[in-house]
Amino acid sequence: MRARVKRIFSHVGDGVDLVVFANSTDPHIDLSFMYAAGLTDGLFEGCAVVLHPDGHAEVATSALEEEAALESRLPLHVFRTRAEREGVMKELLRGGRKIGLNFAEITHRAAEELRTFAPKAKFVDVSQAVMRARLVKEPDEIAHLRKAASIASRALEDVMTGIRSGRKESEVAADLVYAMQRRGASGPSFRTIVGSGPNSAEPHYTAGPRRIRPGDLIVIDFGARYNAYCSDVTRTVVMGKATKKQQEIYDTVRRAQAESIKRMRAGTAAKSVDTVARAIIDGSPYKDRFIHGLGHSVGLAVHDGGGMNQASDIVLRKNMVFTNEPGIYIPGFGGVRIEDDILITADGPKLLSTATRDLLEL
Amino acid sequence: MRARVKRIFSHVGDGVDLVVFANSTDPHIDLSFMYAAGLTDGLFEGCAVVLHPDGHAEVATSALEEEAALESRLPLHVFRTRAEREGVMKELLRGGRKIGLNFAEITHRAAEELRTFAPKAKFVDVSQAVMRARLVKEPDEIAHLRKAASIASRALEDVMTGIRSGRKESEVAADLVYAMQRRGASGPSFRTIVGSGPNSAEPHYTAGPRRIRPGDLIVIDFGARYNAYCSDVTRTVVMGKATKKQQEIYDTVRRAQAESIKRMRAGTAAKSVDTVARAIIDGSPYKDRFIHGLGHSVGLAVHDGGGMNQASDIVLRKNMVFTNEPGIYIPGFGGVRIEDDILITADGPKLLSTATRDLLEL
Repeated sequence: MRARVKRIFSHVGDGVDLVVFANSTDPHIDLSFMYAAGLTDGLFEGCAVVLHPDGHAEVATSALEEEAALESRLPLHVFRTRAEREGVMKELLRGGRKIGLNFAEITHRAAEELRTFAPKAKFVDVSQAVMRARLVKEPDEIAHLRKAASIASRALEDVMTGIRSGRKESEVAADLVYAMQRRGASGPSFRTIVGSGPNSAEPHYTAGPRRIRPGDLIVIDFGARYNAYCSDVTRTVVMGKATKKQQEIYDTVRRAQAESIKRMRAGTAAKSVDTVARAIIDGSPYKDRFIHGLGHSVGLAVHDGGGMNQASDIVLRKNMVFTNEPGIYIPGFGGVRIEDDILITADGPKLLSTATRDLLEL
Repeated sequence: MRARVKRIFSHVGDGVDLVVFANSTDPHIDLSFMYAAGLTDGLFEGCAVVLHPDGHAEVATSALEEEAALESRLPLHVFRTRAEREGVMKELLRGGRKIGLNFAEITHRAAEELRTFAPKAKFVDVSQAVMRARLVKEPDEIAHLRKAASIASRALEDVMTGIRSGRKESEVAADLVYAMQRRGASGPSFRTIVGSGPNSAEPHYTAGPRRIRPGDLIVIDFGARYNAYCSDVTRTVVMGKATKKQQEIYDTVRRAQAESIKRMRAGTAAKSVDTVARAIIDGSPYKDRFIHGLGHSVGLAVHDGGGMNQASDIVLRKNMVFTNEPGIYIPGFGGVRIEDDILITADGPKLLSTATRDLLEL
């Protein structure tokens, strides 16, 4: 993982001589720990990795995680007690004068503790550097992301016949998670959304006891985790024959997605991709109904760092992977969202998720 | 939720006039936000709750989460942009002189940002107070925990016939998660462990491609999430007839659990409960093979705060819920762990998890 460590330092400001990623208790785990150590499985509560500008890295691990940490093939410093952990960390931080931390994923307590372990060092935020390093994926990361997207796409096909009137949203969500695990996912990459009828108009709804009814729009937003990497896919289906309005909304979202995906090329500003999709929706009868950003980087985390929205200053580069997920939401009526995971290649955008984007009338 | 807010302040040091729980991006969510706002569903990225000593609380929520935040029945301050969020937070912190934060669950970045929103205030760590408040459960929390434990117990029965030679650990894990969701869980409360054969000797193993073989010990550690509350249960089974050694290990762990559960009464030091279990294992041929603490509080988080181990200073009180999970691990051979969720009542310990504790020979 020397290349990853060097990539992080290439984005870090001058004078940083150590970078530390330190985990607390689940769920307060810094996924950059997994990234820098090259680990794709394990929990690693209380563990840390210390990075040097030359690409060298060492891991501080609890005895409980030692077996899993061996996979990193990095030098391990094993602790059994809190006192041993303090000793290990002090030793690993020794000599660091300007130490970079990922302020975005370390708890305040862990950051304050590290200050006491290296009282003379200056601590600086390297979260932007970490985010920028993680944005550009390596071949093995792309392979994991491709597989995660493929699992999700095929799992949706597996459960399609189970999406019918009378079934609860939560049952469809359970079916989908099970299908992804049967296809090799270690689990869902986030809590599955199955929003039917009026619930489809809430972008952050999850899945509840509501039973699917004829005429419902159903937004299904889900993803698989495979070797620690995430997919994030959304499809919208209609229960029965789509009304003219449902079809019109769907077609608008689909056009916004298709046109904006074409713009996802190396050298393009992420913001301008959002602009393309937003202009199409805002030029339709559904102006102002697209109430979130167009997409986000996906990797070890579902929201892996940079966004593709009006506030983004990211320029798309080869081997970045972003979601593209325009939507239209009409409170009380329903919503439509279509989301795919897209790899930026030298030849342009490649879709990693493959489930059909036609409006399915079930 | 005024009672919860007041309970938190009852544990906080003098002079704290505001307590703030602030979320970042998933998974960096402070579950105390859910606790204080009385919410049991939703993601609430970037949201915050501000608590006052008189029990009053207000929520800052993004427009995306507004619908879900309404469930709190607290005053809502809705923001659409980063600038609006800053305005809302500054307004909510206005007048705070000594502001408590949950250092254990807020990111360093979020804590530093709050400092800039209230530059004259002093910020102090109230994580211990939060932990102590969350340790003692209210009736509705106990009902959710009981249901989560019941779902897990019954789901294990559902999948028992699927635990057989030749099946992969990951398949059994998928079956178990599906069974929990079918029984009403919103999902697993953590990543399911199915460790077979030598993998059963690793306490933090998850579930992999290994196929179950005759003679394997299989450690199954799993839990359901129900209305945001967690269960955490472990059973160990053997594939085929147990050897004398397997039975002896199992009986030792079972005795350690049974004897230590008896000690789980209001007024008992958590440490002394660990001591009882540890003495039984260390008095057996498996001395020093119990390599983790006996248990931990369970609630909104699987590891909800206090531990029941040799480092613990917690005294058990009525309406606390702790796991009791002794284990013996023999590298290369296998391991046994038995884990239940136990409610401390006025009448002594009550087991919330009900799956049989007999050694099942499958």
